[in-house]
Amino acid sequence: MTQLDGGVVPPVCTPLTPERELDVPSLERLTAFLIEAGVHGLFVTGSTGEVAYLPDDVRYRALEVVAGVAAGQVPVLAGIIDTTTPRVVEHAKAVKAFGADALVATAPFYAPTHPSEFGGHFRAIRAAVDLPLIAYDIPASVGSKLPTDVVVELAEDGTLAALKDSSGDLDGLRAVLERTDPTRFQCYSGSETLADLGLFIGAHGLVPGIANVDPHGYLRLYEAARREDWDAARAEQSRLRRLFEVIRVGGTRMGRYSSAIGAFKEGLKCRGVIANATTSQPMIPLDDTERAAVRQHLDEAGLL
Amino acid sequence: MTQLDGGVVPPVCTPLTPERELDVPSLERLTAFLIEAGVHGLFVTGSTGEVAYLPDDVRYRALEVVAGVAAGQVPVLAGIIDTTTPRVVEHAKAVKAFGADALVATAPFYAPTHPSEFGGHFRAIRAAVDLPLIAYDIPASVGSKLPTDVVVELAEDGTLAALKDSSGDLDGLRAVLERTDPTRFQCYSGSETLADLGLFIGAHGLVPGIANVDPHGYLRLYEAARREDWDAARAEQSRLRRLFEVIRVGGTRMGRYSSAIGAFKEGLKCRGVIANATTSQPMIPLDDTERAAVRQHLDEAGLL
Amino acid sequence: MTQLDGGVVPPVCTPLTPERELDVPSLERLTAFLIEAGVHGLFVTGSTGEVAYLPDDVRYRALEVVAGVAAGQVPVLAGIIDTTTPRVVEHAKAVKAFGADALVATAPFYAPTHPSEFGGHFRAIRAAVDLPLIAYDIPASVGSKLPTDVVVELAEDGTLAALKDSSGDLDGLRAVLERTDPTRFQCYSGSETLADLGLFIGAHGLVPGIANVDPHGYLRLYEAARREDWDAARAEQSRLRRLFEVIRVGGTRMGRYSSAIGAFKEGLKCRGVIANATTSQPMIPLDDTERAAVRQHLDEAGLL
Amino acid sequence: MTQLDGGVVPPVCTPLTPERELDVPSLERLTAFLIEAGVHGLFVTGSTGEVAYLPDDVRYRALEVVAGVAAGQVPVLAGIIDTTTPRVVEHAKAVKAFGADALVATAPFYAPTHPSEFGGHFRAIRAAVDLPLIAYDIPASVGSKLPTDVVVELAEDGTLAALKDSSGDLDGLRAVLERTDPTRFQCYSGSETLADLGLFIGAHGLVPGIANVDPHGYLRLYEAARREDWDAARAEQSRLRRLFEVIRVGGTRMGRYSSAIGAFKEGLKCRGVIANATTSQPMIPLDDTERAAVRQHLDEAGLL
Repeated sequence: MTQLDGGVVPPVCTPLTPERELDVPSLERLTAFLIEAGVHGLFVTGSTGEVAYLPDDVRYRALEVVAGVAAGQVPVLAGIIDTTTPRVVEHAKAVKAFGADALVATAPFYAPTHPSEFGGHFRAIRAAVDLPLIAYDIPASVGSKLPTDVVVELAEDGTLAALKDSSGDLDGLRAVLERTDPTRFQCYSGSETLADLGLFIGAHGLVPGIANVDPHGYLRLYEAARREDWDAARAEQSRLRRLFEVIRVGGTRMGRYSSAIGAFKEGLKCRGVIANATTSQPMIPLDDTERAAVRQHLDEAGLL
Repeated sequence: MTQLDGGVVPPVCTPLTPERELDVPSLERLTAFLIEAGVHGLFVTGSTGEVAYLPDDVRYRALEVVAGVAAGQVPVLAGIIDTTTPRVVEHAKAVKAFGADALVATAPFYAPTHPSEFGGHFRAIRAAVDLPLIAYDIPASVGSKLPTDVVVELAEDGTLAALKDSSGDLDGLRAVLERTDPTRFQCYSGSETLADLGLFIGAHGLVPGIANVDPHGYLRLYEAARREDWDAARAEQSRLRRLFEVIRVGGTRMGRYSSAIGAFKEGLKCRGVIANATTSQPMIPLDDTERAAVRQHLDEAGLL
Repeated sequence: MTQLDGGVVPPVCTPLTPERELDVPSLERLTAFLIEAGVHGLFVTGSTGEVAYLPDDVRYRALEVVAGVAAGQVPVLAGIIDTTTPRVVEHAKAVKAFGADALVATAPFYAPTHPSEFGGHFRAIRAAVDLPLIAYDIPASVGSKLPTDVVVELAEDGTLAALKDSSGDLDGLRAVLERTDPTRFQCYSGSETLADLGLFIGAHGLVPGIANVDPHGYLRLYEAARREDWDAARAEQSRLRRLFEVIRVGGTRMGRYSSAIGAFKEGLKCRGVIANATTSQPMIPLDDTERAAVRQHLDEAGLL
Repeated sequence: MTQLDGGVVPPVCTPLTPERELDVPSLERLTAFLIEAGVHGLFVTGSTGEVAYLPDDVRYRALEVVAGVAAGQVPVLAGIIDTTTPRVVEHAKAVKAFGADALVATAPFYAPTHPSEFGGHFRAIRAAVDLPLIAYDIPASVGSKLPTDVVVELAEDGTLAALKDSSGDLDGLRAVLERTDPTRFQCYSGSETLADLGLFIGAHGLVPGIANVDPHGYLRLYEAARREDWDAARAEQSRLRRLFEVIRVGGTRMGRYSSAIGAFKEGLKCRGVIANATTSQPMIPLDDTERAAVRQHLDEAGLL
């Protein structure tokens, strides 16, 4: 089993056929594309992977495909995203069987859950399946923020191996970094646009959605930060910020998720990595103008 | 198949054994208890039924048990609660096979979804499975409110058969009632404490969690409202408001869900309906003092 | 001094000249119009009165004008709306001198204030100026809800004489009504569209913004509720709900406040009560189409 | 008149006597203390200066005192914090007379205001008083975020001279920095704990509340960032983060504002700068244990 050790870990998109079934050859090509670029790990069935839309069998098949191509070259993290503990534990058991090297779980959602109950949630997952467990802090999706005290306690007692921070709260991330042992507990920033700041304050790695489309950019940014070349890191971040503007391509006629996931997939299609840019129901698809705008963004970023 | 036609439709609790497995005999007794009390329908695997905690097989088994006992005497509604469309459609197909008379689905959650995408969500569910579809408006759990315009449009085109309103927004519920045809579209209030107001403004029925414990009270309230005896309706509501205070029994040492579901189950145990008050992980169980307080509340409400 | 004793208490609009100065003759006519209609009190410099926009001297002059016309026929309540205690106390002293019969104060805003500090806020106001003090619960403006426990404690110890509830939380209002002595503590609903429900649950009076335009409608509703003629109350509320749709006249090209206040003032102009529909900076004024729509709404409501 | 040009600009505390009147000698000493430390400007009557609690005369007197001591050595910025345009314009006129070199205004609050109305707000202030105008983005207090597009437009047309960002949204601050001309528009970070990140992304200056207590620390941080010595900047920030923990000294028995402002003032008293740590009503004062904890924090930070 391959160990996670910082670096760039893209949350892998889940390519679909026009009939909205898993497009296995495209997913295989995407996995190979990312590994060849030099990424340090792959995060399957995360938010960018449309996990909330995928039935269980599609989730597990996607993991199986990615783990098959990865073949131990890089660790494969599996998102076990579901409402609360017993359902998450079921996923944890399943993904271990399908090749996951680590588990990524959020705080409970849908059922109002108190921070005093978060510990029990993560401990039950950790106890059920012997794989490194990563807490995924994503208040925009689950409606609550993982408190620093909870993360630190679960890091100290060995429940959690890492934190993936998609909260946008750099102050909170910094607090976790200050209060945990970096040799035993890793922090990942989920931000596309403040990735340099995450590394500046000591994060071990990055999980940027748009690294599907431009893994080389985030790898350059990561390497620059590693050698403390902050001018280079900021310059690369600046380029990637411009590219990331592509997520607004759908404007106000759709949700931001439809726009962002649609843009990532269209970008991957433009680059010849995947065959279709189809997204899951009920996302609104990009129209011709919006697709042309995606191509334009990639062109300006030097990706075509 | 039995048709839903207003009235009191409790969201059925899901009794568990001390090992946290489905307690089938208790669920059978609870179903019989509610039907004998005279309820007009049963809502299985709703929020009160701990749906967010139950793995798929437990959800479907619970439905099967309730539908078996109901045996067509009252309609059985099944909550098909999951993050977004493709996953919800899978549940819809399954629950039809397990005996559901109607489907209850929320707006998408976890994945940020725009109101312009809600229509596609409900239409896809309705198209996939031929059962009456009820929209479940529960912003506290899903993070978004179903806009009146969306509900009215989906009522008019026949996608939705009913609305279950757990938003607490009586102004919005009133707007839906004003703008839909009451002979073709029904509205249910999910409030325990403003049930009389829901009926006063024209709602067809009630889905109060604590009707598990005191179905007779909500039936009296409903009947009083039907004959426009508002003094009697308010008096019964007042009694039920006092009883509903039981949900605060856990105070601040746990989440409000742990406290409320724990109190409902303890209440059912006190009344001899179910065998155990066990709740799902990671809910914090009530302690001895809190359990005694539940019994005290029931005693004061004349339920022991 | 005139005592407040329930009933319809409109939050009086503040007419402005085209140069955005206080239009004294219009305010005198509006005051007389409302008193002749039979209102039970007048609430000056509330949210509907554009209090947040009015410099101190305009606030106090508006109060002076209204109190002058009222001349003891009905009580005049003065909104003393400011960020926190010492500033609110200054207003309290001033409005007493300008003829207020009672004070209306919100929870502190701008400065993050904890519920444990709300008691000190209201007690300091009450101690500084000997006038009945009314708590104004308006979370949409101040960012926090007055907890039931706080209101009840301040009612019991005599700090508060009444509550004006603009929170939309009928459950909370009901809890306050249940836990206070109706002979010593009054509750007012600030809702235009659920006024019948407020009275149904026991509120003493109403403070509906659109009662500026149609005081007779709210008086009919109030009287119907007093004699427990709920069919009549609901029918009147239904008519007033349709009229209240006028607040959406500005659509999405302006804030909802610009639209609502603009509509109220245009309505008063259509009815010949005030001379100009000018609103304060930076509100966006209604355009010709929108003004015509206001007239149309009033026409349909039988007010022209 | 002295021009603002980046650097450390503390939001000056407002010392009060035990009777809660302005403590002029203490304010004079505090002003001198900060100027001697080398700060680049002084921000009077900001949130840290308890502006929301101070009656107008106290606000203006505080400004007059600070401007008198500053005597043109550093620019004095005046917070003109009030609900909306006409009231803010009144303050703008007053503070010009009392010696302000620049104005600091927030988005409107209390009255729900649409982003389309923000431009009119700032333009009206700018048109009324000829002083540089700084937009103060503080969503936690005013309930809305200044959109990047609005800030950029108002920077380009010369309405705004600068932005003080207290939103915590580094992504948004970065967007403003990217889209404005740094020779004509300045950005200030209001964060105590991410000040290094603000400077890293290009902000011109800092407005940290706790710089009242430790101006030298923020000056060292600022100078380190200016010479791009990021290791030194981070080390200083790390020390200041520990010091800033002092704001939690009041725990959960009071609001966070009572705790933070109480701690700043107690810290200034410990350092011999001001005579009393009294805070405004209705803030809860620190008790003996909490005051001792403040002293302990300062001791550990090497400030005693």
